[in-house]
Amino acid sequence: MKHAFVSYKGAQHWASAEGADPQILRLRDGSQIGIAQVQRWHPPLPEALQGPRTIACLGLNYANHAKELAFKAPSEPLVFLKSEHALTGHLGQTVRPAHATHMHEECELAVVIGKRCKGVSQEHALTYVLGYTVANDYAIRDDLENWYRPNLRVKNRDATTPIGPWLTDAADVPNPQALTLQTEINGQITQTGTTADMVFSVAYLISYLSHIMTLERGDLILTGTPEGVTDCPVGTRVRCGIKGLGWLENQIVE
Amino acid sequence: MKHAFVSYKGAQHWASAEGADPQILRLRDGSQIGIAQVQRWHPPLPEALQGPRTIACLGLNYANHAKELAFKAPSEPLVFLKSEHALTGHLGQTVRPAHATHMHEECELAVVIGKRCKGVSQEHALTYVLGYTVANDYAIRDDLENWYRPNLRVKNRDATTPIGPWLTDAADVPNPQALTLQTEINGQITQTGTTADMVFSVAYLISYLSHIMTLERGDLILTGTPEGVTDCPVGTRVRCGIKGLGWLENQIVE
Repeated sequence: MKHAFVSYKGAQHWASAEGADPQILRLRDGSQIGIAQVQRWHPPLPEALQGPRTIACLGLNYANHAKELAFKAPSEPLVFLKSEHALTGHLGQTVRPAHATHMHEECELAVVIGKRCKGVSQEHALTYVLGYTVANDYAIRDDLENWYRPNLRVKNRDATTPIGPWLTDAADVPNPQALTLQTEINGQITQTGTTADMVFSVAYLISYLSHIMTLERGDLILTGTPEGVTDCPVGTRVRCGIKGLGWLENQIVE
Repeated sequence: MKHAFVSYKGAQHWASAEGADPQILRLRDGSQIGIAQVQRWHPPLPEALQGPRTIACLGLNYANHAKELAFKAPSEPLVFLKSEHALTGHLGQTVRPAHATHMHEECELAVVIGKRCKGVSQEHALTYVLGYTVANDYAIRDDLENWYRPNLRVKNRDATTPIGPWLTDAADVPNPQALTLQTEINGQITQTGTTADMVFSVAYLISYLSHIMTLERGDLILTGTPEGVTDCPVGTRVRCGIKGLGWLENQIVE
């Protein structure tokens, strides 16, 4: 089952849907609407925009992406945090700042935690997952980057991390390490990859983080991006897809 | 006026108090209690533990502290984010992990934002401050640190950032760049400093951050620590004080 958090007729609704590419949403009151009737797609996160939420993001978690940025694969997960204003929903617009030298799209598998989780083993880690969604963790690079990585200018501007459209139940994703990712920019395929190539698996990351800090329902882990990131100028339409999870679309504006 | 968020007789209360070193708290229902009657001091933040909250922390924001860690003063604010589980209140206990090689205390002026703030000038920045409190932003160092700074192990373990006890109204702090800081460890003075020595002022930091991302009521900025950080073994009692804002006490446990 897939879930979405949408605005329709001026109100916010949780809705559910079936299949890989749903066209119809069922609202909680039982009524059905077509996806074209959605006014706005919000990040599909439980209690969205209410709870304190930790958003943990991985750097260089695909060896080939590390190589294209001229780094070695890390020996330990490289994790940074993001604040909630950095998120936006499906079909959102993302601003490219005037001073950016590069604005790289980054298609990523995003993991939504379902219940409080502290000090869990890898073996049990996936039982704490509520579901999965698609994220595009744009990196906005400029000439001012410094050794303190990642600078908030690079990864934490408002609305620079589209996420959604669907939260797919964990039960429908038996193996999160067997998912294919793909990015299309203005209709051309740029990134292709598979979560099988992650340096640190979803189960490893949940276990690792939960030994440092408590994870809560609604917390989010963005698991890194495969190779093929491309500079995206203003006007670019970026679609990030993960097979079975759906397509996340976003436009870059001035 | 000072404010505190405390547990008393099993319930949580906002309370207010007067003066530099209050002994009496007035609860919202008008009753008064002594500070010894407080069961637990929570972080004194509006809507504590409810809203999505951004906690932005400064690295190397006092030139002499940068020097003692063998860094140059930064040319731009070095900011990292913290998640809410990292906070704890006055008189809280903080665990020193078994593998830590150093556990440095860091006495810091903490700024609590009062209203939504985006793209503000330095000139108007201080009008967005609700109040000030004291933070101790422990740094837990080990042999595994890597170039991705700061590793979550160093700055984001649960309950490793005591904050409080008081939220002092901004109106009572006419100049946040004229505050003296002091740390006492087991009764010995270790850190002394003044916010006059900050590399980037409170007004500069609010303006800087608000040009990157939206700040909200309840967001927190930890403005960095002066020189004098010391390794704190298990059993250490650490008191961080800022003149006029009060003393924050914390104990390090196994």
